[in-house]
Amino acid sequence: MNGSRMIGEVRVVGAGLLGASIGLGLRAIGVDVIVHDSSPVNLNLAIDYGAGRPAKDTDIPRLIVVAVPPDVTARVVAAELAAFPNAIVTDVASVKVSVLEELRATGADILRYIGSHPLAGRERGGPISARGDLFIGRPWVVTPHDDIPAAQIGVIEDLVLDLGAIPILMTAEQHDSSVALVSHLPQVVSSLLARRLLGGTESALALSGQGLRDTSRVASSSPELWVQILGANSASVVGLLREYRTDLDALIDALDAPSAPGARRAVAELLAGGNAGVARIPGKHGQDRRFSQIIVMVDDKPGELARLLTEIGDIGVNLEDLRLEHAPGVAIGFAEIAVVPEAEAGLVTELEARGWRIAEVAL
Amino acid sequence: MNGSRMIGEVRVVGAGLLGASIGLGLRAIGVDVIVHDSSPVNLNLAIDYGAGRPAKDTDIPRLIVVAVPPDVTARVVAAELAAFPNAIVTDVASVKVSVLEELRATGADILRYIGSHPLAGRERGGPISARGDLFIGRPWVVTPHDDIPAAQIGVIEDLVLDLGAIPILMTAEQHDSSVALVSHLPQVVSSLLARRLLGGTESALALSGQGLRDTSRVASSSPELWVQILGANSASVVGLLREYRTDLDALIDALDAPSAPGARRAVAELLAGGNAGVARIPGKHGQDRRFSQIIVMVDDKPGELARLLTEIGDIGVNLEDLRLEHAPGVAIGFAEIAVVPEAEAGLVTELEARGWRIAEVAL
Repeated sequence: MNGSRMIGEVRVVGAGLLGASIGLGLRAIGVDVIVHDSSPVNLNLAIDYGAGRPAKDTDIPRLIVVAVPPDVTARVVAAELAAFPNAIVTDVASVKVSVLEELRATGADILRYIGSHPLAGRERGGPISARGDLFIGRPWVVTPHDDIPAAQIGVIEDLVLDLGAIPILMTAEQHDSSVALVSHLPQVVSSLLARRLLGGTESALALSGQGLRDTSRVASSSPELWVQILGANSASVVGLLREYRTDLDALIDALDAPSAPGARRAVAELLAGGNAGVARIPGKHGQDRRFSQIIVMVDDKPGELARLLTEIGDIGVNLEDLRLEHAPGVAIGFAEIAVVPEAEAGLVTELEARGWRIAEVAL
Repeated sequence: MNGSRMIGEVRVVGAGLLGASIGLGLRAIGVDVIVHDSSPVNLNLAIDYGAGRPAKDTDIPRLIVVAVPPDVTARVVAAELAAFPNAIVTDVASVKVSVLEELRATGADILRYIGSHPLAGRERGGPISARGDLFIGRPWVVTPHDDIPAAQIGVIEDLVLDLGAIPILMTAEQHDSSVALVSHLPQVVSSLLARRLLGGTESALALSGQGLRDTSRVASSSPELWVQILGANSASVVGLLREYRTDLDALIDALDAPSAPGARRAVAELLAGGNAGVARIPGKHGQDRRFSQIIVMVDDKPGELARLLTEIGDIGVNLEDLRLEHAPGVAIGFAEIAVVPEAEAGLVTELEARGWRIAEVAL
C-alpha cells in the first residue's frame, strides 16, 4: 500500500485488541492516530506499542473509531458525537441494531454515525496482542442507516480498505441476522456441546477424536464477551435457537423409538439437511469449489513437515489447505492436504515414490 | 514391525474401507488373509488391491473379523460363529451393545465373540480408499463380555497391536456411552447446526469464518451410516440430547428476556460450562498441556509454507500442531502454529527478523 486513502487525523477510542490493531495499521501507512482509553494503563501500553499518540485539546479528528465492549459502545459513540460535532463516528462492535437503537433513543446526531464490524480473528487479547495486519483479507461489514450521505459511507470504506479488509455493505438488521447464523449460533451450539463433556468419564474423553475437537473448539471463547454479544443480539439468536430446538425435538422423538415407522427416515432427513447446509459455506477464496484431500503420515520430529511441503512444492502442486492432526498417545502426525482434484492422483503417486505413507485418500 | 503376533490365517468378512484396510495391514506383516464380501465386485476389487485371497473350503481361520455395516453386523457375526465352530469372531461396528444383545437373542455361541471398534479416521470410502496403515496410532476399543477367557481377549489385542493401534478394554455399555458423548453427540449437534444454514442468505454465508467451518465440519458425514449408528445407540444418545435440550431451553429462556434479573448470569454460566468442558479434552499425545499459538501470514503460492516450516526447523522449534486458514477472497493464508509456551517468544522474534508477518499471538 502506498499511503492512505484517508485524509487527516483519526481518533481511536478503546485500546483493546481491535482498537490498538486499527491504530497500528493506520500508523503503518502514515495516518496521524489519536488513541484514547478510559484506562490509563491500557492507553499508555497502546501508545508504547505504537498504536497512536495521546489526545490534544486542538485535535479536530474527521473520523472517530469506537472500539469498546458491546455493552458500552452506544454510550461512548454518543459522547464522541457530542464532543466532536464535525466528526464521523463508527464503531466495531459485533452487534449493530442495539447500538443504533440506543443511539436513537438518546437523541444522538446519528446522521454522523455509521456502524461497522470487522470479522477479524479472535476477539481477545488487549493491546499486547494487537497487530496492524489483523484485518488483512477479512470481511468488514459497514452498516449505513436512513439517509446517510454516500460521502460519509465512503469515509468508512476508506478506513476498511486502508486496513486491508474487504468492505461489505448491509443494513444493521441484515448484519445482526447474518452473524446470528454464522457466528452466534455456532458459538452457542458448541458451548452447550462442550458443557456435556463435564459429565464424561476420563476413559470416554480418551476416545476424543478430531470431530469432537473441531465441533467444540470455539467453546473456549470468553463468556464475558459472549454474554454481551448474545444479549445484544438476543432476538435473532433466539429465533435460530427455536428452529434448532424444533429439529432437536424431532430427532429426540425419532431416536426414542428408532424402530417406529418413519423414524429412520426422519433421522436421515435431518442428517441430509446438514449435508446440504454445510455445502453452502463458501470455500477458499470465496469459491464453492471442493478440493481433494490427501492424508500423509508424518513423523513427529522437527523438519519432517517442512520436508513434506518442500517436496510437494518440488512436485509443483499448490496446497489449497493444510492441517496437522496428532494421533493420541504416539509420536506420529497426519498432515491433511487439500489440492485441486486434477492434482490428486499425480501427487499421491509422486509422494509414495518418495517414500511417504498416504493414510487415506477421500473426496 | 517384524512379523505378526498372530498365528494362522485371518478371515475378514466385508471388504469396505475398514475390512480392506485390515486385510492390507495384516498382509503387510505376512499374515494369510482370507477376504470375503457378499458383493463379488467389492470382493474382487479388494483382492486386486492386495487385501487378501478368496476363501477355500479347507480354510480353518482362528480369527474372523466382521467389517460390515452396523445394521447387519450381528447377523453376519452369528453366521460366521456357526460356520466356523473353532474360530474367535470380532466385529468393528461403531456400536457394541446392540450387536451383543442381538447375538444373545439369536442363541449364538457368544463365548467365541468379542466386539471391538477402531476409532480410525473417517468411515467412508470402500476398498479403493483402504490403507494398511489406517489404524496406526488410533485407539481401538475391545469389549469383552461375561466370562470371556483372557486368552481369547489376547487374540483380539494381538490383532489390534499388529495393526499398529492402541487396544482399550471397556464393556460394551461403557463403549456405547463413551462414543455417544465424544462422537455421536458432536455429530448430531453439528448436523443440526449445518441444517440451519439452509435458511441463510448468500450474504450471510459470505461472512462465514473458521468458527462455523470447524463446528459444522462433521455435518458432511454420510446420513446412511449415521442413521444406523444413531439408531443402534439411541438410548445413550437420547439421554445426552435431553441433557443438551435442558441447557438449550435454559439459554432460550434467558435470551428471551436478556435484561431480566439473573438472565446474564444464566448465559454466563452456560458458556463457562463450555469452557470447562472443552478443557477436559486430552491434548496432543494424550496430554492435557496447553500450547502457545502463533499465527503467521503466508502468501498463497507454492513453496511459501514449506519455506516457513523449514525456517522454523532451522530455528530449532518443534511444531506441536499446525493448520492453514485462508481468508475469503484474497490470495493470502494464515498458518496457525502451536508450540510449547517456552518456545513462543523466541520463535516470534526469529520469524519477524526473517521477515515473516505474525498476525496475532494468543494463548
